[in-house]
Amino acid sequence: MKLYNSNFAPNPRRVRVFLAEKGVTVATVDVDLAKLQHKTPPFSAVNPFQVIPALELDDGTVIGESIAICRYIEELHPQPNLFGATPLERAEVEMWQRRVEWHLLLPIAQVFRHSHPHMAQMEDPQVPDWAAANRPRALRNMMIFDDVLKQRPFVAGERFTVADITGLVALDFARPARIPIPPELIHLTRWHEALRARPSAAA
Amino acid sequence: MKLYNSNFAPNPRRVRVFLAEKGVTVATVDVDLAKLQHKTPPFSAVNPFQVIPALELDDGTVIGESIAICRYIEELHPQPNLFGATPLERAEVEMWQRRVEWHLLLPIAQVFRHSHPHMAQMEDPQVPDWAAANRPRALRNMMIFDDVLKQRPFVAGERFTVADITGLVALDFARPARIPIPPELIHLTRWHEALRARPSAAA
Repeated sequence: MKLYNSNFAPNPRRVRVFLAEKGVTVATVDVDLAKLQHKTPPFSAVNPFQVIPALELDDGTVIGESIAICRYIEELHPQPNLFGATPLERAEVEMWQRRVEWHLLLPIAQVFRHSHPHMAQMEDPQVPDWAAANRPRALRNMMIFDDVLKQRPFVAGERFTVADITGLVALDFARPARIPIPPELIHLTRWHEALRARPSAAA
Repeated sequence: MKLYNSNFAPNPRRVRVFLAEKGVTVATVDVDLAKLQHKTPPFSAVNPFQVIPALELDDGTVIGESIAICRYIEELHPQPNLFGATPLERAEVEMWQRRVEWHLLLPIAQVFRHSHPHMAQMEDPQVPDWAAANRPRALRNMMIFDDVLKQRPFVAGERFTVADITGLVALDFARPARIPIPPELIHLTRWHEALRARPSAAA
């Protein structure tokens, strides 16, 4: 089993942090995004959508999409449970994971992709107006999450789940996207600091 | 149990089609998007992210996000299985559902939201350059899916799954987004027609 990875992109990090939380080691193959290696024919044969991460199993089967990879790892290594232990908890973890992904990681990533000079070649065309539209959206959603986190320690409830991993990666990515997390969002900041303090954050 | 719904938006339709495939009936509450009812305080109390669908359980618990709702329905009504029956199939269904969502539904929806006059009030600001950037992306990804569907009847494999439901909704949404599906994409067209012919498509 091997993971197509880049240490400079947020999505592969979600999988690496997940693996670290599980205590599972998987060999990685680095894909050089700056050299557009993900757009070459060999990598397109691994993933026709030309995105990372992708997990290749020993029989050659490829699983793409960060959360699909994490869900597969959860099936192989059920403990600690990170996707929910009951039907309702599984629905709630899925809901929060998606909310963090769509309402936090996505707008932050759009600001980065459409405003950062390093992305000019990869995001073609860069749309500066789209970066500008996403900046206030990211900030407004940070406020909503701050309110959610006022009520509980982790985003999906009382315990750490895969939804928090997406949150860690999203908030860490706010820095290169040049979206400072407003210091008055004390619950969001407390959550972010708690996630950064876990050993898995180094993954 | 009740479903906050709109008959004019793609995401609630994903849940309605899923329910129809399961043979399950859930009461619906219509949210008038044209009147921005989803942005009012009463609906914000249901879903602070101000999006539909949302499923409210009898005890008041709310599950948001289309796929979280579908996954919960699958837990309550396991047959017919639409999320995968083995660890690997569950990973593959998750992967394909996400690929259809991110690489087909999302660019098509972005074209609609950022170019259609009806969306001027709801999508504030509309970014015409972002619509223009997504149109070729939607078409390129239709070609990739056409190639995938050359090899098998349904997008995740030999049988119908939740990933196909997202595909049906995405391709139907290409029409109001004014992205004609190129007729030379015969495998994509065959798939689309097969999905439209299912009784659930009327949901």
